[in-house]
Amino acid sequence: MCSAEDRPKVVLAYSGGLDTSVILRWLMEQGYDVIAYAADVGQQDDFEALERKALAIGATAVHVEDLREELVTDYIFPMFQANALYEGRYLLGTAIARPLIAKRQVEIAHETGARYVSHGATGKGNDQVRFELSYYALDPEIRVIAPWKTPEFLDRFKGRSDLLAYAEQHGIDVKSTASKPYSEDDNLLHISHEAGMLEAPELEAPEHVYSKTVAPEEAPDEPARIAVTFDDGIPVRVENLDDGTVRESPLELFSYLNELGGAHGIGRLDMVENRFVGVKSRGVYETPGGTILHVAHQDIEGIAMDREVMRLRNMLSAKLSELIYYGFWFSPEMEFLMAAVAKSQELIDGTVTLKLFKGNVYPLCRTSPSSLYEEDLSSMDMEGGFNQVDADGFIKINAIRLMAHRAITKKRAESKRGGQVARR
Amino acid sequence: MCSAEDRPKVVLAYSGGLDTSVILRWLMEQGYDVIAYAADVGQQDDFEALERKALAIGATAVHVEDLREELVTDYIFPMFQANALYEGRYLLGTAIARPLIAKRQVEIAHETGARYVSHGATGKGNDQVRFELSYYALDPEIRVIAPWKTPEFLDRFKGRSDLLAYAEQHGIDVKSTASKPYSEDDNLLHISHEAGMLEAPELEAPEHVYSKTVAPEEAPDEPARIAVTFDDGIPVRVENLDDGTVRESPLELFSYLNELGGAHGIGRLDMVENRFVGVKSRGVYETPGGTILHVAHQDIEGIAMDREVMRLRNMLSAKLSELIYYGFWFSPEMEFLMAAVAKSQELIDGTVTLKLFKGNVYPLCRTSPSSLYEEDLSSMDMEGGFNQVDADGFIKINAIRLMAHRAITKKRAESKRGGQVARR
Amino acid sequence: MCSAEDRPKVVLAYSGGLDTSVILRWLMEQGYDVIAYAADVGQQDDFEALERKALAIGATAVHVEDLREELVTDYIFPMFQANALYEGRYLLGTAIARPLIAKRQVEIAHETGARYVSHGATGKGNDQVRFELSYYALDPEIRVIAPWKTPEFLDRFKGRSDLLAYAEQHGIDVKSTASKPYSEDDNLLHISHEAGMLEAPELEAPEHVYSKTVAPEEAPDEPARIAVTFDDGIPVRVENLDDGTVRESPLELFSYLNELGGAHGIGRLDMVENRFVGVKSRGVYETPGGTILHVAHQDIEGIAMDREVMRLRNMLSAKLSELIYYGFWFSPEMEFLMAAVAKSQELIDGTVTLKLFKGNVYPLCRTSPSSLYEEDLSSMDMEGGFNQVDADGFIKINAIRLMAHRAITKKRAESKRGGQVARR
Amino acid sequence: MCSAEDRPKVVLAYSGGLDTSVILRWLMEQGYDVIAYAADVGQQDDFEALERKALAIGATAVHVEDLREELVTDYIFPMFQANALYEGRYLLGTAIARPLIAKRQVEIAHETGARYVSHGATGKGNDQVRFELSYYALDPEIRVIAPWKTPEFLDRFKGRSDLLAYAEQHGIDVKSTASKPYSEDDNLLHISHEAGMLEAPELEAPEHVYSKTVAPEEAPDEPARIAVTFDDGIPVRVENLDDGTVRESPLELFSYLNELGGAHGIGRLDMVENRFVGVKSRGVYETPGGTILHVAHQDIEGIAMDREVMRLRNMLSAKLSELIYYGFWFSPEMEFLMAAVAKSQELIDGTVTLKLFKGNVYPLCRTSPSSLYEEDLSSMDMEGGFNQVDADGFIKINAIRLMAHRAITKKRAESKRGGQVARR
Repeated sequence: MCSAEDRPKVVLAYSGGLDTSVILRWLMEQGYDVIAYAADVGQQDDFEALERKALAIGATAVHVEDLREELVTDYIFPMFQANALYEGRYLLGTAIARPLIAKRQVEIAHETGARYVSHGATGKGNDQVRFELSYYALDPEIRVIAPWKTPEFLDRFKGRSDLLAYAEQHGIDVKSTASKPYSEDDNLLHISHEAGMLEAPELEAPEHVYSKTVAPEEAPDEPARIAVTFDDGIPVRVENLDDGTVRESPLELFSYLNELGGAHGIGRLDMVENRFVGVKSRGVYETPGGTILHVAHQDIEGIAMDREVMRLRNMLSAKLSELIYYGFWFSPEMEFLMAAVAKSQELIDGTVTLKLFKGNVYPLCRTSPSSLYEEDLSSMDMEGGFNQVDADGFIKINAIRLMAHRAITKKRAESKRGGQVARR
Repeated sequence: MCSAEDRPKVVLAYSGGLDTSVILRWLMEQGYDVIAYAADVGQQDDFEALERKALAIGATAVHVEDLREELVTDYIFPMFQANALYEGRYLLGTAIARPLIAKRQVEIAHETGARYVSHGATGKGNDQVRFELSYYALDPEIRVIAPWKTPEFLDRFKGRSDLLAYAEQHGIDVKSTASKPYSEDDNLLHISHEAGMLEAPELEAPEHVYSKTVAPEEAPDEPARIAVTFDDGIPVRVENLDDGTVRESPLELFSYLNELGGAHGIGRLDMVENRFVGVKSRGVYETPGGTILHVAHQDIEGIAMDREVMRLRNMLSAKLSELIYYGFWFSPEMEFLMAAVAKSQELIDGTVTLKLFKGNVYPLCRTSPSSLYEEDLSSMDMEGGFNQVDADGFIKINAIRLMAHRAITKKRAESKRGGQVARR
Repeated sequence: MCSAEDRPKVVLAYSGGLDTSVILRWLMEQGYDVIAYAADVGQQDDFEALERKALAIGATAVHVEDLREELVTDYIFPMFQANALYEGRYLLGTAIARPLIAKRQVEIAHETGARYVSHGATGKGNDQVRFELSYYALDPEIRVIAPWKTPEFLDRFKGRSDLLAYAEQHGIDVKSTASKPYSEDDNLLHISHEAGMLEAPELEAPEHVYSKTVAPEEAPDEPARIAVTFDDGIPVRVENLDDGTVRESPLELFSYLNELGGAHGIGRLDMVENRFVGVKSRGVYETPGGTILHVAHQDIEGIAMDREVMRLRNMLSAKLSELIYYGFWFSPEMEFLMAAVAKSQELIDGTVTLKLFKGNVYPLCRTSPSSLYEEDLSSMDMEGGFNQVDADGFIKINAIRLMAHRAITKKRAESKRGGQVARR
Repeated sequence: MCSAEDRPKVVLAYSGGLDTSVILRWLMEQGYDVIAYAADVGQQDDFEALERKALAIGATAVHVEDLREELVTDYIFPMFQANALYEGRYLLGTAIARPLIAKRQVEIAHETGARYVSHGATGKGNDQVRFELSYYALDPEIRVIAPWKTPEFLDRFKGRSDLLAYAEQHGIDVKSTASKPYSEDDNLLHISHEAGMLEAPELEAPEHVYSKTVAPEEAPDEPARIAVTFDDGIPVRVENLDDGTVRESPLELFSYLNELGGAHGIGRLDMVENRFVGVKSRGVYETPGGTILHVAHQDIEGIAMDREVMRLRNMLSAKLSELIYYGFWFSPEMEFLMAAVAKSQELIDGTVTLKLFKGNVYPLCRTSPSSLYEEDLSSMDMEGGFNQVDADGFIKINAIRLMAHRAITKKRAESKRGGQVARR
């Protein structure tokens, strides 16, 4: 009845896997023109095969977008300026890529006149939230189709076998999508492994799960030494002190950190974490370059950042990590927090020397042109310098509250005892 | 003129080293009866030699107190319940022992009728603050003699050579106090190395500085596996899964963690930190057992602690770490924070399996009778369980703010552009 | 078909108004036996008429529960110990009563063997969340029927006229439920007015809206003076200093504060606030007694609470207010926070004298047996007292960071200028 | 011996009162050339008489500086953007003026080649800290002379009679400095009254103490209505809705708010607060215009500020208020916090209508071009608008944690009971 031009357009985040291939076809069945979209955020994928497959299934167009440079400069580096660490441990590898993927998806929708966007994330995970909050935040008028939360889709596809049957029925190639007994998310910053056989937190994750890092036991017996240089809290230079290799452009620098980290077994993490949707889940992560960068950045801040700025920034970092994990990258509160973080990084310059060895990253020493370290300050003109006798007054003034508390507590305890005696 | 009975008494925290030996003699010179006091907090010391030396110099009495058990149960374990970590890295090894040492010192003053206490900490460091705030907090009437902040003492002893000359003059044995080119603080939880040759943050600390841990490079090529069991966030059992060794009493358990950590090169840290007195300093730390305990505790909390309790507790942990580092262990604000921390630990039970390998501690898996992990919950009766479709409403409600913000920002930007056009 | 015994039971929070009367009947239509439940939390209601009406509509039983004493002692007083104030202004009058109402409702469900609970709160407000989070938190197996979020109900009742038609059709008396052009929630702590004609935040609320307080303009020209006495942060005595009236039991004391506050026009508030469901709403509140109590409690804390405890407690109060407002009264995080709050109140004792005058509450003076006020402390034995010269060292040590920051900033600015010159 | 040119120069913050007049002369005695400096921050002072007096005593120069405009635009308005409120009550009237006074003093020192600055603040108060931290922060090389912390000065002047005797001896006019039995600090934002007869917190402050506000009892029986308009959180227009008076320039606008507030008895506060030096003190404050501005700003934020930005900003406001009160206006942490505050104010535009009546300020209604209020948003295009059914999923997802907590708590309680039974 309708001509093709009248069919509503939807931009689908397409991975080439079984789920999103079925979704692509199913969306066509629902009457949509599907524009397949794949973001290259550094994952190991055959984007040409992916493009062919999408077209074979029936996509009206395929957009493969290289977002790697933008991911490093506009997402990863600012996040590391903030020392973000979810629940004290997780470097937010999946969470940080989602808003960028969503942003480009919305832009493609605008470019192609599509009013709909779609994704294949499940209804129990974090990614659905990260995608959809980003969509809505960037375009309040956008319509979202999330098949894994759509009753009709859920009724029809109750398990993997339904998906496979549908794929076969519609001639969708399923051989190329080798299935692992758990799910993964791969990008420049990390690879995650979760669900399936990894769901049992009481069972150790087998070695074969890991793919971006060698086992620490298999890492070189010789440590590597590198120097990481920061400007305003952003890494601008990495030098391998053993062989003189130098990397300075953001993507090359970060990829080199990944290479070094992977070779030395750095950045493995197995943890139970709290999802935004209220459940706990177990994640197995590999973040080789990010782990090195985090340690290095924390160390350069140690010498160059004011103590009270650090206290306040750390308090905000916890909140900021939560916001990134939950999917609020594009939000007024992130803008608020990042304004302060940017301010905090203005003097975070200098070079940290690190040792990489069998899974560990050790800061060895550091220099900074804005060092607040005492020896470095002693040459400056400050009124009289540090006078030990000043500490006496400092301590006594700090003790006044404590003495008053003790005196009152004692007095009250005595009066209560006295009162008890009196009442007898 | 005065009889000995009239001389005021002072309880001196005595280490047996050059500084406190000179201070002991100098206090006598100032007219005090000196009671030497040494706390055994697990450091490598010859307490018998120390006692002989103090008496030889002229102490009227010597108290050597074994505080190790109390240190573990009343100070270290509660601090680890709180996941305290100063500036995101330092496990507070020196800071946590100081209030206990001060407390016993004040008690001895009360027992012996002394109105004065004294210590040999310098006027630029943290320890003077920790000692004195503890003294004043425990007894507002106590008088503190801190020679390194006393002008007369500082005028007389301008450097090490003055101390040595005074020692020789008064027959104080200086051979037994071998001097290292940096200063150390040793106890059950850690050993610190700082100052002297370590002051330059741009120079790597040499390997020979380390004494509680082997170099990761020298650690066994075979990882060790252990299981740590918690009850209310307190470790109650450690089992070596390789050889079946089990430790259950607090001091034995913690000492065994130190032994394992030391053998596997675990717990080394080199950082520039912020002192309470406003300067930065570089510290080199070894915290073998504490590092294992910290990782294990964080992991068991991952599975057993409610998400929002964790968020709030973490916010308080940062403050609490600062308070411990600064010396406010005995303070109303610590009591306030610890009341909440104790509440947070009521369900923190279970067992974490860890791998120890060349400087690293890896949580491998974990079980908990109060697991909030989804699989573990699924057998419980909850209204309908998790319904994926619910996530749709959850996300949309969360998106409302973001959509409103975007809509307003866009409207305001347009009206400002419009305004500019209009004004032309 | 089914015998009455087989019909599932539902406990409905019943107000006697149009909405819940229709819901009562509609639930019967859906096949439920309805147990009507009304909580007396101090609102102006005719509970006998309410009971007759519920039975007339067809309720199988009616429970009218007097929760006033419990509301004051277990909810209002602990909340005021915490100085809770939502968004810096709102004293949480509606929010604090909801969990108590829900708790009794769940208990009645258990007592009567009902598996369902129901309420008439709308799907855009806060109360639905507060009720349902409380239900689920208290009994994870409970089933909730919320007609205003049920598509069948929403389809059938699109507006007030549909409700009225249904009521007429089923013989439900609607005369007794006089309708105001806005909605209200009344209890011991406050009355709120919102929605309807009050929805426009750009229009002033008319005077006739207010019902618990006289207009400040109409309040007595003579101020009243009262004294409020606290024990552990809980008010235990109110004395009218003008006429000698004394109230000491919780409910009487609080009711008397309401009486005084109402007569003096105290506790009116008109604000736009943020709901948990992501939208803003305008509320007009009257909290006469609560406003007096809040001011008095804050004042007694001023003299009796340690500074740093106050800092930390205030940080937690903001979070705690949010939790109460959102509906998380029964939650692990509330237990966590209240453990700390309880600790903070142990010394909060004493008496505050206040002046009440035409809408305002002025603290005039205060005494406390645990006063930390300096004059009160001066008689205690503390080491040497406050020595003005100590302040010198205190300031200098505090200035070190600031001097270092200035010196570095200047050096960096100069080197950047130098660099620019050099590059030319 | 020395020529006048060789005498070191000191810039003294000179008030014209007894204390600083004596200090001026005493500094000359100590060998300094004294440059008297008086800042006009809006206090009621005769600056011409002050200048004559300083010269008569022997000042080599007198600088009277009008800092009122700068105080309003660069200090007061930014502080009110942050909603700063010390300990929940005090609007920081004294604290905010000190850094500005100190800044100009340091500038004059630089302009005149003086290496010293001096002030007459006592050694137990906050002002000494605020002055000196500002001096040191602005010029780490400056030398500070604080006579009230200088042993020689303290030895010589033990009380008011010593000061009077010295003044008489040196021909210093003391008649013009009428002495009140308490001390005051007066500026554009407020006047404070403290110490002396006000020190007893258990005694009511007498009415004659107040000078910037009429007693609420004496205020007009007719309320006034005004409209305050904000742009980026800064007040840009005040209109008296009764008589049409309009004020738009910062200083005029703020002075007009003071006039209105004073006439209506607004801004009185009597509280016990915590000083930075560890003691509590009682302050009686009058902040007429500031109180109106605070209420108005909070109200416009209610309609225009995102909820989560408000949460975070409020958390920072508490810290920021503490920093201002303590004297850390010029500090890296203030720069950090103000970067975020500035971001938070970008959309804080609109107009609040307020009623002023006998000591109270009531927001009546408000409009904003960036209103996030629901009615105002409904005309915008957002995906589907608010759907009540979404709230169902929102609540259920939020309840998951609570259900899990309850289930676990119950299970654990049962297993403990079971364990106890088993052990019997």
